[in-house]
Amino acid sequence: MQDKTPISKLGEFKLIEHLTHDFPQKNASTIKGVGDDCAVIDSPEQTLVTTDMLLEGIHFNLEYCPLKYLGYKAAVVNFSDIYAMNGKPAQITVSIGVSSRFNVEDLEELYQGLRWACEEHGVDLVGGDTVASLNGLVISITCIGSAPKDKIVYRSGAKPTDLICVSGNLGAAYMGLQLLQRELEVVHSVPNQSQFDQSQFEGREYLLQRQLKAQARKDIVEQLAKADILPTAMIDISDGLSSELFHICKQSKVGCTVYEGKLPIDEQTARLAEEMNLNVVMCALNGGEDYELLFTCNINDYEKLLPLDDVYIIGHIDKESEGINLASHDGETIPLQAQGWKNV
Amino acid sequence: MQDKTPISKLGEFKLIEHLTHDFPQKNASTIKGVGDDCAVIDSPEQTLVTTDMLLEGIHFNLEYCPLKYLGYKAAVVNFSDIYAMNGKPAQITVSIGVSSRFNVEDLEELYQGLRWACEEHGVDLVGGDTVASLNGLVISITCIGSAPKDKIVYRSGAKPTDLICVSGNLGAAYMGLQLLQRELEVVHSVPNQSQFDQSQFEGREYLLQRQLKAQARKDIVEQLAKADILPTAMIDISDGLSSELFHICKQSKVGCTVYEGKLPIDEQTARLAEEMNLNVVMCALNGGEDYELLFTCNINDYEKLLPLDDVYIIGHIDKESEGINLASHDGETIPLQAQGWKNV
Repeated sequence: MQDKTPISKLGEFKLIEHLTHDFPQKNASTIKGVGDDCAVIDSPEQTLVTTDMLLEGIHFNLEYCPLKYLGYKAAVVNFSDIYAMNGKPAQITVSIGVSSRFNVEDLEELYQGLRWACEEHGVDLVGGDTVASLNGLVISITCIGSAPKDKIVYRSGAKPTDLICVSGNLGAAYMGLQLLQRELEVVHSVPNQSQFDQSQFEGREYLLQRQLKAQARKDIVEQLAKADILPTAMIDISDGLSSELFHICKQSKVGCTVYEGKLPIDEQTARLAEEMNLNVVMCALNGGEDYELLFTCNINDYEKLLPLDDVYIIGHIDKESEGINLASHDGETIPLQAQGWKNV
Repeated sequence: MQDKTPISKLGEFKLIEHLTHDFPQKNASTIKGVGDDCAVIDSPEQTLVTTDMLLEGIHFNLEYCPLKYLGYKAAVVNFSDIYAMNGKPAQITVSIGVSSRFNVEDLEELYQGLRWACEEHGVDLVGGDTVASLNGLVISITCIGSAPKDKIVYRSGAKPTDLICVSGNLGAAYMGLQLLQRELEVVHSVPNQSQFDQSQFEGREYLLQRQLKAQARKDIVEQLAKADILPTAMIDISDGLSSELFHICKQSKVGCTVYEGKLPIDEQTARLAEEMNLNVVMCALNGGEDYELLFTCNINDYEKLLPLDDVYIIGHIDKESEGINLASHDGETIPLQAQGWKNV
């Protein structure tokens, strides 16, 4: 740990200046960023606000999650919520609590990841709070975005006969987590082993990437706009497909059927699930942290949906009385459970 | 602890619903509150955003700070930042991390305090995040407010000859903290004593109130508007007068002189400082958490300032080259130090 800079050497104000000076502003709507009592934002459209808190030991494990990736993820999970409203993220505030275990270089790495995410998504860092913590690392990010009033997509607009669509594939982030946790147990249990056995990760790089470097699907929102499709309801999949289907159905007062055979599952996900004796469909339904978009569209948009890249039609909306169901490969209809990804 | 409800009994979604259902919306600008991926806010004016994070053991001690007051304070310290821009707070998001030491009734108490603050200031709770923590309580609040573009007051507008004004009085919250910490040490050091010696608090209720129930000075912002005074610069005093003067002077590229004899100090503050052998002027200059407003006004506003209630003129802005100074009782000029209220 030599040559590292204790945080106390800089003090709060200098630390904030040091960490945030290299975030050039990208949005004309950012009138004032870091450095006053508030950030000031120009809002010609409606303003979207979302917030997420990540705690060390609960949401991330620094034994396998590099700080740069953690910073990246902490930002994009918020962008994902803005995209899920069919909006565009524009600003974030970043509050961090850090114990004395961390030094300035650690925080630089974390902010590198934040900058990386902000650059990819055209977002400005406009404020935050930097405080001491007694135990570990706390990150709380609020993201501000915008969308024209008539383009905002809520969870509540799904109607019977609407098509249910999902981007990307499901369960990969969950299997990435299972893999990392399994290998970490090996590291902890084998004497004199302090490194991961990299051979266990070969051919499974995609799963690690999905767990460690979450993507927010800006591209899907852009494709939908280009194709002139306005979803009737949308949500991002942070707690697993089942849980998000329940949110849409509850708020839209509808039921739904999704088809087991239509669930997009990557080959690496399927192979590792089999190896670990996990039911891959359960992983796809209940695994968290995919950050894909789940949305419903009027059936008249069917032709427009087909050419979209990486978008899959997995089912349809039913009347509320029909419930929330999975149609299995063998034709059975199984009621889904809203297991979610229990945080509390 | 009998009859208390473990948080796990409700689960995340039901807990959020339980805690937030009793927050009626007050602002027409709140289009969508809790219950979607984002809150949606209508913004005809410019949007102000501020955020604060409070960690148990660093920012608050539940041995003397009741959860209801903590909730109240966590909200109003954010409102104070919005008022410091001459804005009006309208929405908050509340993220909390809670360890298993806390139960549902504890969180209800915390949210009672949040509701109390929101009612007093006309603010809507529009979202947040509720997560488990391994250690203690974490509260991260983001507040959204607004102001017309030409009424926003930054830290950067002070000009030489401007008057420096402060609301309320200084150092009381700091002395309240000293008192609570002293009495807590007694409780910890005396065998078989588990209660505070209430007689120590008699005649010092104001200090406790200033420490435990911070006020955000909505009334000052309203008075300024009524008197048709637009401050040239403004900041709220969270880290102590000295530190905030440095912020205004640095960002406005000016110097200043404040007069020792003009610093508003309450009698209880002065008496306890003397008893504890503390220099009361140092307490007024460097004690944190007053949440009063510090602002500068054009000297032509002098006549308009005089009738304002609880506003004190404490000095004037100088050229940058003259530095940041305290004019003492005996006519000496002492350069001020930006001690601040070190969090990191």
